[in-house]
Amino acid sequence: MAMWGGRFSENTSKDVADYSESISFDKRLYKYDIQGSKAHATMLGGAGIIPEATAKMICEELDNILDRIEKGDFEFKMELEDIHMNIESALIAKLGDEGARVHSARSRNDQVALDIRLYLRDEIALLIDMIREFQKSLVAKAAENPEAIMPGFTHLQHAQPVLFAHHLLAYVEMLDRDAERLADCAKRINVLVLGSGAIAGSTLPIQREKVCELLNFSRVSRNSMDAVADRDFAIELLSDLAIFAMHTSRLSEDLILWCSQEFDFVELGDAFCTGSSLMPQKKNPDVAELTRGKTARIYGDLMAMLTMCKGLPLTYNRDLQEDKEQIFDALDTAKKILRVYPPMLASMELKKENMAKAASDPALMATDVAEELVKLCVPFRTAHHRVGAFVKYCKDNNKQLNECTLEEMQITIPEANANFLTLFDAKSSVGKREVTGGTGFNEVKKQIAFWQKTLE
Amino acid sequence: MAMWGGRFSENTSKDVADYSESISFDKRLYKYDIQGSKAHATMLGGAGIIPEATAKMICEELDNILDRIEKGDFEFKMELEDIHMNIESALIAKLGDEGARVHSARSRNDQVALDIRLYLRDEIALLIDMIREFQKSLVAKAAENPEAIMPGFTHLQHAQPVLFAHHLLAYVEMLDRDAERLADCAKRINVLVLGSGAIAGSTLPIQREKVCELLNFSRVSRNSMDAVADRDFAIELLSDLAIFAMHTSRLSEDLILWCSQEFDFVELGDAFCTGSSLMPQKKNPDVAELTRGKTARIYGDLMAMLTMCKGLPLTYNRDLQEDKEQIFDALDTAKKILRVYPPMLASMELKKENMAKAASDPALMATDVAEELVKLCVPFRTAHHRVGAFVKYCKDNNKQLNECTLEEMQITIPEANANFLTLFDAKSSVGKREVTGGTGFNEVKKQIAFWQKTLE
Amino acid sequence: MAMWGGRFSENTSKDVADYSESISFDKRLYKYDIQGSKAHATMLGGAGIIPEATAKMICEELDNILDRIEKGDFEFKMELEDIHMNIESALIAKLGDEGARVHSARSRNDQVALDIRLYLRDEIALLIDMIREFQKSLVAKAAENPEAIMPGFTHLQHAQPVLFAHHLLAYVEMLDRDAERLADCAKRINVLVLGSGAIAGSTLPIQREKVCELLNFSRVSRNSMDAVADRDFAIELLSDLAIFAMHTSRLSEDLILWCSQEFDFVELGDAFCTGSSLMPQKKNPDVAELTRGKTARIYGDLMAMLTMCKGLPLTYNRDLQEDKEQIFDALDTAKKILRVYPPMLASMELKKENMAKAASDPALMATDVAEELVKLCVPFRTAHHRVGAFVKYCKDNNKQLNECTLEEMQITIPEANANFLTLFDAKSSVGKREVTGGTGFNEVKKQIAFWQKTLE
Amino acid sequence: MAMWGGRFSENTSKDVADYSESISFDKRLYKYDIQGSKAHATMLGGAGIIPEATAKMICEELDNILDRIEKGDFEFKMELEDIHMNIESALIAKLGDEGARVHSARSRNDQVALDIRLYLRDEIALLIDMIREFQKSLVAKAAENPEAIMPGFTHLQHAQPVLFAHHLLAYVEMLDRDAERLADCAKRINVLVLGSGAIAGSTLPIQREKVCELLNFSRVSRNSMDAVADRDFAIELLSDLAIFAMHTSRLSEDLILWCSQEFDFVELGDAFCTGSSLMPQKKNPDVAELTRGKTARIYGDLMAMLTMCKGLPLTYNRDLQEDKEQIFDALDTAKKILRVYPPMLASMELKKENMAKAASDPALMATDVAEELVKLCVPFRTAHHRVGAFVKYCKDNNKQLNECTLEEMQITIPEANANFLTLFDAKSSVGKREVTGGTGFNEVKKQIAFWQKTLE
Repeated sequence: MAMWGGRFSENTSKDVADYSESISFDKRLYKYDIQGSKAHATMLGGAGIIPEATAKMICEELDNILDRIEKGDFEFKMELEDIHMNIESALIAKLGDEGARVHSARSRNDQVALDIRLYLRDEIALLIDMIREFQKSLVAKAAENPEAIMPGFTHLQHAQPVLFAHHLLAYVEMLDRDAERLADCAKRINVLVLGSGAIAGSTLPIQREKVCELLNFSRVSRNSMDAVADRDFAIELLSDLAIFAMHTSRLSEDLILWCSQEFDFVELGDAFCTGSSLMPQKKNPDVAELTRGKTARIYGDLMAMLTMCKGLPLTYNRDLQEDKEQIFDALDTAKKILRVYPPMLASMELKKENMAKAASDPALMATDVAEELVKLCVPFRTAHHRVGAFVKYCKDNNKQLNECTLEEMQITIPEANANFLTLFDAKSSVGKREVTGGTGFNEVKKQIAFWQKTLE
Repeated sequence: MAMWGGRFSENTSKDVADYSESISFDKRLYKYDIQGSKAHATMLGGAGIIPEATAKMICEELDNILDRIEKGDFEFKMELEDIHMNIESALIAKLGDEGARVHSARSRNDQVALDIRLYLRDEIALLIDMIREFQKSLVAKAAENPEAIMPGFTHLQHAQPVLFAHHLLAYVEMLDRDAERLADCAKRINVLVLGSGAIAGSTLPIQREKVCELLNFSRVSRNSMDAVADRDFAIELLSDLAIFAMHTSRLSEDLILWCSQEFDFVELGDAFCTGSSLMPQKKNPDVAELTRGKTARIYGDLMAMLTMCKGLPLTYNRDLQEDKEQIFDALDTAKKILRVYPPMLASMELKKENMAKAASDPALMATDVAEELVKLCVPFRTAHHRVGAFVKYCKDNNKQLNECTLEEMQITIPEANANFLTLFDAKSSVGKREVTGGTGFNEVKKQIAFWQKTLE
Repeated sequence: MAMWGGRFSENTSKDVADYSESISFDKRLYKYDIQGSKAHATMLGGAGIIPEATAKMICEELDNILDRIEKGDFEFKMELEDIHMNIESALIAKLGDEGARVHSARSRNDQVALDIRLYLRDEIALLIDMIREFQKSLVAKAAENPEAIMPGFTHLQHAQPVLFAHHLLAYVEMLDRDAERLADCAKRINVLVLGSGAIAGSTLPIQREKVCELLNFSRVSRNSMDAVADRDFAIELLSDLAIFAMHTSRLSEDLILWCSQEFDFVELGDAFCTGSSLMPQKKNPDVAELTRGKTARIYGDLMAMLTMCKGLPLTYNRDLQEDKEQIFDALDTAKKILRVYPPMLASMELKKENMAKAASDPALMATDVAEELVKLCVPFRTAHHRVGAFVKYCKDNNKQLNECTLEEMQITIPEANANFLTLFDAKSSVGKREVTGGTGFNEVKKQIAFWQKTLE
Repeated sequence: MAMWGGRFSENTSKDVADYSESISFDKRLYKYDIQGSKAHATMLGGAGIIPEATAKMICEELDNILDRIEKGDFEFKMELEDIHMNIESALIAKLGDEGARVHSARSRNDQVALDIRLYLRDEIALLIDMIREFQKSLVAKAAENPEAIMPGFTHLQHAQPVLFAHHLLAYVEMLDRDAERLADCAKRINVLVLGSGAIAGSTLPIQREKVCELLNFSRVSRNSMDAVADRDFAIELLSDLAIFAMHTSRLSEDLILWCSQEFDFVELGDAFCTGSSLMPQKKNPDVAELTRGKTARIYGDLMAMLTMCKGLPLTYNRDLQEDKEQIFDALDTAKKILRVYPPMLASMELKKENMAKAASDPALMATDVAEELVKLCVPFRTAHHRVGAFVKYCKDNNKQLNECTLEEMQITIPEANANFLTLFDAKSSVGKREVTGGTGFNEVKKQIAFWQKTLE
């Protein structure tokens, strides 16, 4: 009979046990369950709810259990349902009545909420560190290639020449927001919920502030019903990870394009690609593709978590047990991406000539021509229209924009002067965009330096 | 070096291997991979692409491998990436060059698509069987309790009295549509895609119709590019399972309500409930709650699959590897629900007096009064308004509807006669609804008989 | 006071009326509401529940109302909440007591379920027609260009040469499954639910089979509680549309790639592209991009519908009112895509030389070399490895595969003979894949003919 | 021909214009588009890019246009596509060449990103205010009913008695996190992106810091490519709103339960409920049901936005245009909920006797008994088991927990003493839970006071 089974006449059926157990996945929380129980026992002892000597024995035995688990010398039992009961049961097996005192003034409802918060606090710190490494790998690649010019794309059409480094730094910005969001989420996680009991607090004289201090939380929760019913922080985390994954899906898409024979802008290291079982020539950017695919998985986790919480009455409902697998899956996926991406970027070789060639398409400088007209006081909308007509003229006459004479240009752009013929150089086009956030050589160097310093 | 690695200079990095392997989950397909390879080898032999003797040896050794896997005597290797390479590699290890002929005229792209289709064909057949058992358990419970009356709810407010059996049969209808949808999906799965190669078919003289016949597919696919790029069938399956899960979430919600102290309409067997680690009196309907929660999970799987396929260019992209874990998770979850629900329903005891008491609220018969007026030729809208006013009168006077005299009733319903005072009996109210699909005793018996026959 | 307000003391607050009204969007159902009410009234008259003359008057006046609505001569009132009450109220305004009889033996719960089913039955028929037109536009473009060769892609890497027509026909297959799924869904929609009342049927002697016949449904629903609680069909429809949209997102991705300067395989008509407010040279494939984006919208509609239904107890709950905007949005979006895509495809011009040039990369024929070795009895896996080594040799020596001498080829492929040097021709490579579903010239012509006949 | 149409030979087709226009919904941004254009023009004038006098004229005319729009005296034209072109075109119509200068050094890509950020900055401030009002309405209702006791639920089963006020305050906590999250999101929105141009900045000497100051942003964006490609902030906002909506769905579920005849804990004002078209007695909690349903809608918006951004290459792609309708729909829905809920809560009347009666079930005090044993030094796990056995004894003997004699209690709880018979009083049970966050009378009063002060 289960440890909670005093009032029951019948054991849980095998299929139901299979259905409702969580030990197969929540055992991952063992360290945090033990950490929480130690703080709880210490407080119980200090507050005289259990003898101080008992508290000490419990803490020591919990350390033993931790040790056994880490050595692989602990048998998790499905019939004990979850990590909490597995550990409490092991404690009782060793300490008898003294172990049986640990669950005073707490419930699995507040215990599991505590465990997840402790766990996520650590995981978020780790994620942020890994994001910093990811940013560094992007900044490093940018710093190695400060002058490489490529076409910037909008609508996957050539727009204007940009620095390859500038393109990479766009991702550094995205990742920075990801880290910022995670840090914001961590603030909301860092609250002590233990002491909320199953729903209503406790009639025993517990000292929540003491536990808060022992576990280094920033504050004690203010409402016991909210404390056991709340999974906001997990949804927020999954939402942050979904946005992070979306960013990696965009970078992956860029890499997949760049690796195609048509773009041919970069080559990834062999160690980051795989071949085909049929076609001997293939070298596929699988990591990028899988990352794009795994984004979907994190979205699914988020959607599951949101759906799970929708319309649940207060307070704890067993539906909430489904939170953990979604959280674990999303975290594992994010960490895998973070592990594989930086070395892959380091392995990436640029084909600068191909990039440069693509960027040298004079049509990319059409905007520069229009802006040159603005400098001559032509209203922008007029300038735009004239240059558009010039583009059409070139297309109709099967010429590149830089293949026309000044006279030809003046057919559609009467204000054009000799200087206009010099505007079709990608490098000088890039060089003119030194505005803050622009793709100018100096501006990008400034941004690289900013990030190198920030990420130090 | 991997089996496809002829052109590579460097081995896949360990992190990348971890990232991209699928053997940890696609090994589940071993039986279907072997079944497909046997049919393929047989055809290759028959068509003279490989020697007939080789084909025979391959088939025999594949049977050995199957046997070893089922006995737990086969080591799956992560460095061999997936189930296909693990099995091909074992074949070559045993048969040498003869084994190395099996992959002629096929690619992992068409092979995996074949495997999943074979797998899902079986799984859907199983699901449909399990759904039939679920329906039977509902029909049986209905048949055991043909006369139990309960309040029917709209907006979770008492609406009209209905038979408990009628309520259960609503779920039989939903499950029937679920089975129908799965059968429709199976039609689209039952197509042979092998022979599509990586993308373009083969230059070898393969006989696809022969393989089709051997594997008992209904037809051969018509376009090789579609064949390797298509995961529609998996999305369709997940969508069918999402609807199925939604149905079980509604039934679960009903059970959770009925088990609450406020409703107290049923009691589930102890074997299908669990207790609280803190509160000794608790008996919680965990299975129903978990089912409601697991619905979210299947929704997440569906959303992941849809997202994964969005915007992928033709044809195969590695993102598609992410399909399997979503498929497996959704199927496993659905089967778990299907396994646990029928015995739980069988364990459910009705508290008919509580139901009957709740259904005896005379306000539930207000519609009968309005319809009685229609029989007296009062326009329905007028009738509705008069009965509404009567309800308000009762409320204002703190009376139940059946506590008024005829005179009081006539204040708001001038057409009322003595017969009207007899309308407030739930049983006779139910008895009047013998329209097809209605809750009348005979109609519900007819529906029970229909389902008993249909599900035989 | 609302028409249902007999028992209420207070009017609905303005904000609540805003919150709960549906007339602003469900007025779209007017035609079906009237069609259903006419059938209902006819049956009521025939069954003697209302006078036959009244039934006739109601039908005539409903026709008048239809006429007024279509002429824009009908004022929809928010305070009447929904289309049902707006029309019933107009009927009563004109016919007085006789109009007030129409709502006998029905509820808005079964009425709205009927209306949506009638509406969707028509919409699905329309969608299927439009899908057929879409397929025709693809087949036509394929038929115009039966010989154009392009590289087939897996992992967005060059895989093997394929016919452009073959690529387009892959989408014809996808769309065919879309139409098939919609037809399957229509079977489940084509069921008469009217007569289910609010939840329990009616005490009045209604004749559901008569209404079924009048409205041309395939059968009468079997359970009144299911009938009013069920929105499966809408979820199924949205799921079908989500898969359809996913297909269009893939086609859009292909087009966006093909329109890029790097691929440069096609040009879309000016009428299907837009320019930039800043960059005068831009011509963007906006329609394809928007289609890819709108896929997301239909996914969102599906997810909303699934979430909405999750965990609702039986039977009707007001949450279900949220179904309509999701249905309408998904249908409108799908129809917009279907409207704009066929003419855009018609406007598309192929740049066959660019395609052919890309397809002429000899690495694309590496598989042909391996298969040629199989014909010489080399085991496939060995053949694959040798050709892989040959690819590596070429790469290391900076040569194309067709730039080696036979002697060089024999370094890695000892079995190679003079014939092998002729294998690097894309056209002859394509010509060898005449297997069913393959990209061979004749096979593709056969498939084009099949579709032309099927879609006639 | 469109304003960007210089290079085009053909007008956009009508269907394409319908497909791609956004003016039908983005006109909502008019105020922010004008605000942004004024700041931009002022800067252009100050920087000498356009004449100062022109800048002044432009600003004045923009004010005129604002005025015309607000008076309904401005015709939005679909052929001008979006709000930006509609306003620029009106400006040019009035000012000719001088108006045609406004678009210098900007693109619609950075302009729309600016507009949305300006818009959302205001909207978030408004949302936070409305959330504060919602919190106040909950705190007020709690403060009015400081002593009302109800059963606290876990698993929708009676758990322990709690204060109704405590239950309401749980929602105040949730809403507080919602406001906090929105404020965090606002930090990331409050960044100036204008000056990023289409993708690469500008060659004109713009002064971004000046515009930043004029528009009161906290800083200038650091990367032009990120600036035009980024929609993180919108996803983050929708995710915050999804969590908010989830909270309201839980409160709605509670209200729906409480309004049921079975619970009968509260009654909502007639103005916040609606009736049935068929059943005259019905009074349905529609607002709560619709809110639960509308949660689904916001989830759908979030999922759409995430899907939309998945896998997009840098930088701007037209898919992003689909962001606005999702943003608007989610904001509108959230604001509607926020508008309707506070007055509904104000209208809610408590049925305290029903609550108290439900809470008086002695089984709710089982935990108190176990904790009393802990005070007597019985290990908690033993205490729990003994009380469980006592519950079973009572059930088997068909008695309430408080109907046993001390002798009977001692059969299963040998340590029980006379004091134990006094533990079954809900009020004194509540009174013992004065731990921080607990449901004790004083603790809840403290929390009410805290919130009253905080929300002042």
